[in-house]
Amino acid sequence: MNTEGSAEIIAATRRALCEHGYAALTMQRIADESSLSTAAIHYHFDTKRDLLNAFLDELIDRFEGRLESEASDSRERLVAFLDAIFVPTDERDEDFPIALMELKSQAPHQDAYRDRFRQLDRRMREVVETAVRDGIAAGHFADADPDEVARVVVTMINGGHARGIALGEAPDETRRVIESYLELQLGWAPEVPA
Amino acid sequence: MNTEGSAEIIAATRRALCEHGYAALTMQRIADESSLSTAAIHYHFDTKRDLLNAFLDELIDRFEGRLESEASDSRERLVAFLDAIFVPTDERDEDFPIALMELKSQAPHQDAYRDRFRQLDRRMREVVETAVRDGIAAGHFADADPDEVARVVVTMINGGHARGIALGEAPDETRRVIESYLELQLGWAPEVPA
Repeated sequence: MNTEGSAEIIAATRRALCEHGYAALTMQRIADESSLSTAAIHYHFDTKRDLLNAFLDELIDRFEGRLESEASDSRERLVAFLDAIFVPTDERDEDFPIALMELKSQAPHQDAYRDRFRQLDRRMREVVETAVRDGIAAGHFADADPDEVARVVVTMINGGHARGIALGEAPDETRRVIESYLELQLGWAPEVPA
Repeated sequence: MNTEGSAEIIAATRRALCEHGYAALTMQRIADESSLSTAAIHYHFDTKRDLLNAFLDELIDRFEGRLESEASDSRERLVAFLDAIFVPTDERDEDFPIALMELKSQAPHQDAYRDRFRQLDRRMREVVETAVRDGIAAGHFADADPDEVARVVVTMINGGHARGIALGEAPDETRRVIESYLELQLGWAPEVPA
C-alpha cells in the first residue's frame, strides 16, 4: 500500500471534514482537497467509513505522540498533558474540534469510531493516572485515588470540548477549572504562565 | 397561533430527531411522526431552523420545570438537581442524548441554537451556585467558591453527556465522580440510594 497516498488522503479528509462537516463529507469533496481522483481514493479506502477509521487512527497516533513526555518529574508530565490538550498547534484547524464533536455524535451508530474514542480515552486517563500515582509516591502530591483524579480531569476535558462547541466558551476556562481542582485534590497546581 | 398544533409538531420533531438524526431531519419526516401535513407544519414554522429553535425552547422549559425544587434545604436542592440530570424519565427517548449532541455540534453554525444552549448552561450553573451558597451560609457545607463549584459540576455533566455518546459510558459513572468531588470540596455528599 502506498503510504504516502494514504497520508495525503487522510490530510485531505481532515480539511474536507473541517470545511463541510461530517454530514456533507463525500469522496468527491475529499478528492477536491487532494491531488488524487475519487478512483485513487477508493483504491486506498473502500468506504467513507474505512477512511474515517484511518483518519481517527492517525489522530490518536498524533495525539499520543504529543502526550509522550520524557520528563521524570510527574508534575512536568501533568503540565505537558494539559499543554497537549489545551495549547493550540499551528497544524490544527480551528474547525477541527467541531469535526471531532460530529464524529463523537456518530459513535452510537459506528462501533469502529466508538472503539477508537475508547482507546483515546483510556490513553488519556492512563497518562493522568500514572503521573498522579508517581507524584504521590514522590511526595509531590497529597494522597488521592489516581484513577478517580484521572476520571475527573478527563471528564472535564470532554466537557470543555463540548462547551467550546455548544457555547463558544474558551478552552482556557476549562483548563483553569481543572487546575483549581488539582490544587484542591493534590495540593498542587501548575504554575500559570504570566 | 394554535398552541396545540405547535405542541404536537414539537413532539413529532423530537421523535423524528431521535429516529433519523439531525442531518436526515426533514419537514416530511416530522409530518410522518404527526397527524399533520407538511403544509400545516409550515403554517406554524417557516423553516426547520425555526422549528428546532421552538424545540430547544420547549426542552429548556421542561428542564427548568424539573429543576424547580421547593426544598428549602440546599442539600435537597442539589440532590434534586442531580436527579433531574441523571434519573431517566419515562417520556425521555433513549436516543434523545444523541439528538442533543448533534444539535450542540450545530451551534457554531447556528447562533440561535448557541443562545439557547447558553441559556440552559446559565440556568444549570445558577441552580448549583445558589444551592452551594445557601448551604455554606447554613453551615451544611465547607467554605468554597460557589461559582467555581457550579462550573466544575456543570462541566462534568457536559463531559458525562459526551462520554455517554462517544464511549457508551453509563451516566451513573459521571454522577458518582461528581458526588465524590462534592464530598472533597464541600465535605458533603448525597446519600447514594442502595
